[in-house]
Amino acid sequence: MPASPIRKLVPYAEAAKKRGIKVYHLNIGQPDIATPDVALDAIKHYEDKVIEYGHSAGNEAYRRGLEKYYRGLGIDISFENIIVTTGGSEALVTGMMACLNPGDEIIVPEPFYTNYNSFALQAGAVIKPIATSIDTDFALPPIEKFEELIGPRTKAVLVCNPNNPTGYLYSREELEQLKQIVLKHDLYLFSDEVYREFCYDGLEHFSCLQLEGLDDNVILIDSTSKRYSMCGIRVGALITRNSEVAAAALRFGQARLCPPALGQVAAEAALQTPSEYFSEVYEEYIERRNFMVDALNQIPGVKCPRPRGAFYTIVELPVNDADDFARWMLEEFDYEGQTVMIAPAAGFYSTPESGKNQARIAYVLKKDDLKNAVICLQKALENYEL
Amino acid sequence: MPASPIRKLVPYAEAAKKRGIKVYHLNIGQPDIATPDVALDAIKHYEDKVIEYGHSAGNEAYRRGLEKYYRGLGIDISFENIIVTTGGSEALVTGMMACLNPGDEIIVPEPFYTNYNSFALQAGAVIKPIATSIDTDFALPPIEKFEELIGPRTKAVLVCNPNNPTGYLYSREELEQLKQIVLKHDLYLFSDEVYREFCYDGLEHFSCLQLEGLDDNVILIDSTSKRYSMCGIRVGALITRNSEVAAAALRFGQARLCPPALGQVAAEAALQTPSEYFSEVYEEYIERRNFMVDALNQIPGVKCPRPRGAFYTIVELPVNDADDFARWMLEEFDYEGQTVMIAPAAGFYSTPESGKNQARIAYVLKKDDLKNAVICLQKALENYEL
Repeated sequence: MPASPIRKLVPYAEAAKKRGIKVYHLNIGQPDIATPDVALDAIKHYEDKVIEYGHSAGNEAYRRGLEKYYRGLGIDISFENIIVTTGGSEALVTGMMACLNPGDEIIVPEPFYTNYNSFALQAGAVIKPIATSIDTDFALPPIEKFEELIGPRTKAVLVCNPNNPTGYLYSREELEQLKQIVLKHDLYLFSDEVYREFCYDGLEHFSCLQLEGLDDNVILIDSTSKRYSMCGIRVGALITRNSEVAAAALRFGQARLCPPALGQVAAEAALQTPSEYFSEVYEEYIERRNFMVDALNQIPGVKCPRPRGAFYTIVELPVNDADDFARWMLEEFDYEGQTVMIAPAAGFYSTPESGKNQARIAYVLKKDDLKNAVICLQKALENYEL
Repeated sequence: MPASPIRKLVPYAEAAKKRGIKVYHLNIGQPDIATPDVALDAIKHYEDKVIEYGHSAGNEAYRRGLEKYYRGLGIDISFENIIVTTGGSEALVTGMMACLNPGDEIIVPEPFYTNYNSFALQAGAVIKPIATSIDTDFALPPIEKFEELIGPRTKAVLVCNPNNPTGYLYSREELEQLKQIVLKHDLYLFSDEVYREFCYDGLEHFSCLQLEGLDDNVILIDSTSKRYSMCGIRVGALITRNSEVAAAALRFGQARLCPPALGQVAAEAALQTPSEYFSEVYEEYIERRNFMVDALNQIPGVKCPRPRGAFYTIVELPVNDADDFARWMLEEFDYEGQTVMIAPAAGFYSTPESGKNQARIAYVLKKDDLKNAVICLQKALENYEL
C-alpha cells in the first residue's frame, strides 16, 4: 500500500516547525470544536470494575439509542440493522469485505477520500473513479457517465455525502437518479454520511437510507468522529436493512470481538447532546466557510466553490503542481514566520494527472487563524515561481 | 466467512437462560478479575476537552511506556518498533496483510484460536495446520513435521504462547528449534503472546523477540486485554524490528487513522499496575487451574493435561461429538437448574474430524462456580447417551 501524497508532506511540516515557523494546518479534518460535555462527563463517571468484552455488534443500549437518533432524522431502522464499528474506517472495510469479492469493482465519484483506496485494497476491490468537476461544484455526474463505467464486475457505488474532500452536498434529486442506476444493475450503494450534521444554507441532509425500494442495496457508513468532535474514540457504524450483508458484517465483527467499550460510553452519552451544541457548531462553521470561500476567491487565480456541507473545499490554484507548491510552502517559504500546510488534491484522485492544480482546504481552525492562513497563502502564491 | 461452531451454541445458551437455568460459561475467555484501579482512575480523570485523533502508531507516551515494559522483560526494543493496534485482533490482521500476499501459506499448530481463520481470510492467506496432540500436552511438533508442510507458498509460522486454546507454554528450547526452521526457509514468525503474564509452576515466559538473529522475521502480537483484564478497551500492539514490515503495518494503521484514544489512556496507566495485582491474579488462577484440572481428571473418561499457561485447557471427553454434547447440555440437560457451556474443540481445528471428542475449558470463573460447573459436567456425562 503506497503512502499518501499528503503523508509525504508531514516531514516537511515537522522540519518547518523545528525551524520555528508556525504552520497553519488547512490539510486535516481534526476539528478544534470541544467534545460535548455529556460525553466527557460519561467517561469521568465510568463505574464498571471490569472493562469487559461487549457485544460484537456494539452495546445494545447504544444501538437502541442510535435507532432513536436515526428515527428522529426520518430514517426508519431498527437497532438490529446497526453494527457498531471501530470508527467509520472499519465500517467501510467491513462493508466492502461483506459485499465484494476480490476483483469486484466499485464506482466512486472522484475526487474522493484517499483512504477509500486502502479500504478497497484490503477488500481486494477495484475502485473505478467517475470524474466530477470543479466547474459544476463537484455535483454528481449524469447517469450516462455511470452507465459507461458499469461492467460485469461492477458491484457497488460509493458516495460520500456531504462530501469529503469537496464539501458537495448531494440533493435528494441526485440520489433518486443514483437509485435508478443502482436498481437497474442491482448494485450495492455505500453511503458515507459521517458529515451529515454539517449542512449549510438551510439545506437538509437526505440519507440514502431514505431512498425507497433500496433496502437490499444501501449500506450506510457512519461515525461519531465529526458529529461530536471526538475523532479519537473510534466509534462508527455500519447500517443496512439487508440482513445477509448485516450477518456477514457481524461475522467480521465477531472475529475482532467488539468495538471499543470506552468509546461507546462516550458515544452513547453523546446522543443526549443538547441541540444548542449543534447550533453553535453550525454558526461557527458557516462563518468559517463564508470567510474562507470569500477570502480564497479574492486571491488572483484562485477558484473556490461554495460547498454546502462538511468542512472542506477543493480549490483550484494558479500553480502547475499543487504538490510541489505545498512542499515549497513548507520547505522554502514563510511570511513573518508563518506558513500553511494544504492537502494537494492529486491524492484524492485515482485518475493520473487529475487535480494537479487543486488542493483540499479544511476550514477547521478558528477564524483568526484562518485569516492568517489565507494571508500566508496569498503571499506564497505571489512569491511562488511556477 | 462461516460462523464459528461456538457461536452456533449461543442461541441455545440464551434459550436455556430464558427457561430459568443457570449457565456456567466455561466457553469464553472473559476473565472476572477486576481491571487495575490505576487504569480505571485514569479514565475517570480524563481531562482533554477534545478527544482528538492520535498518532496512527499510537500515542508516543504510551509507546515509550511499552518500550520500558518490554525492556523490563528482557526484550530489547525501541518505541519505534511498536505499532499500537485496536486489540490483538487488528495486530494479527495487519501483520498478515503486511507480510503475506493472497495465496501465501502460514503454518499454525493445531488446535488454534478460531479467529486466526478469519484474520487469514481477510488477508487472503491460507492456514496450514500442523497437528499437536493431547498425548504430549500439545507440545510443538518435531521440526520434521514442519519441513513436510513447507512449500513454495509458505511464508510464515504463527504460534500462540502461552497457547489459546491448549494452555501449553512453549519452552525456550522449542522456540530455538522453531528458529532454525524459520531461518532455513526465511519465514516470518508471528508470535501471539497476549497471555504472557499467565505462566504457572514457576516457569518463565520466553518471547520470540528474545530469539537472536531473527530481527527481520519476528512479528510479536500483543494485547492489554487479558494482562489487565480490560478486554473491552481494544488496545493491542504489533511489534517488530523489521522496519519494512513496521512501515507497511503503519500504512494500514494510517488508513484507519488511530487506535482508540480512551483505551490508550487506560492502557498507559495500566503500565503502572503494582506487582501485587499480578501476584494476586497468579494465585487466583493457579488455584483455579489446579482445582479444575484435578476435578476434570477425576471424572471417568475425561482426560485433561495440566497446562502451564493462559487460562484454558483442552479436555478429552467420553463422547463421540463434543459439539452435540455441548448443545445437549444447553438444550436438554440441567442439574438442579444449572448447566454448563463448553467450547467444542472442533472449532479450533481446521483439519476435518479433528478434536471431535475434545472441548476447550476456560477457568475464568470463581472457584465456587467452577465447582458447580464441574459437578454439572460430571452429571451431564453420566446422563448423556452417546
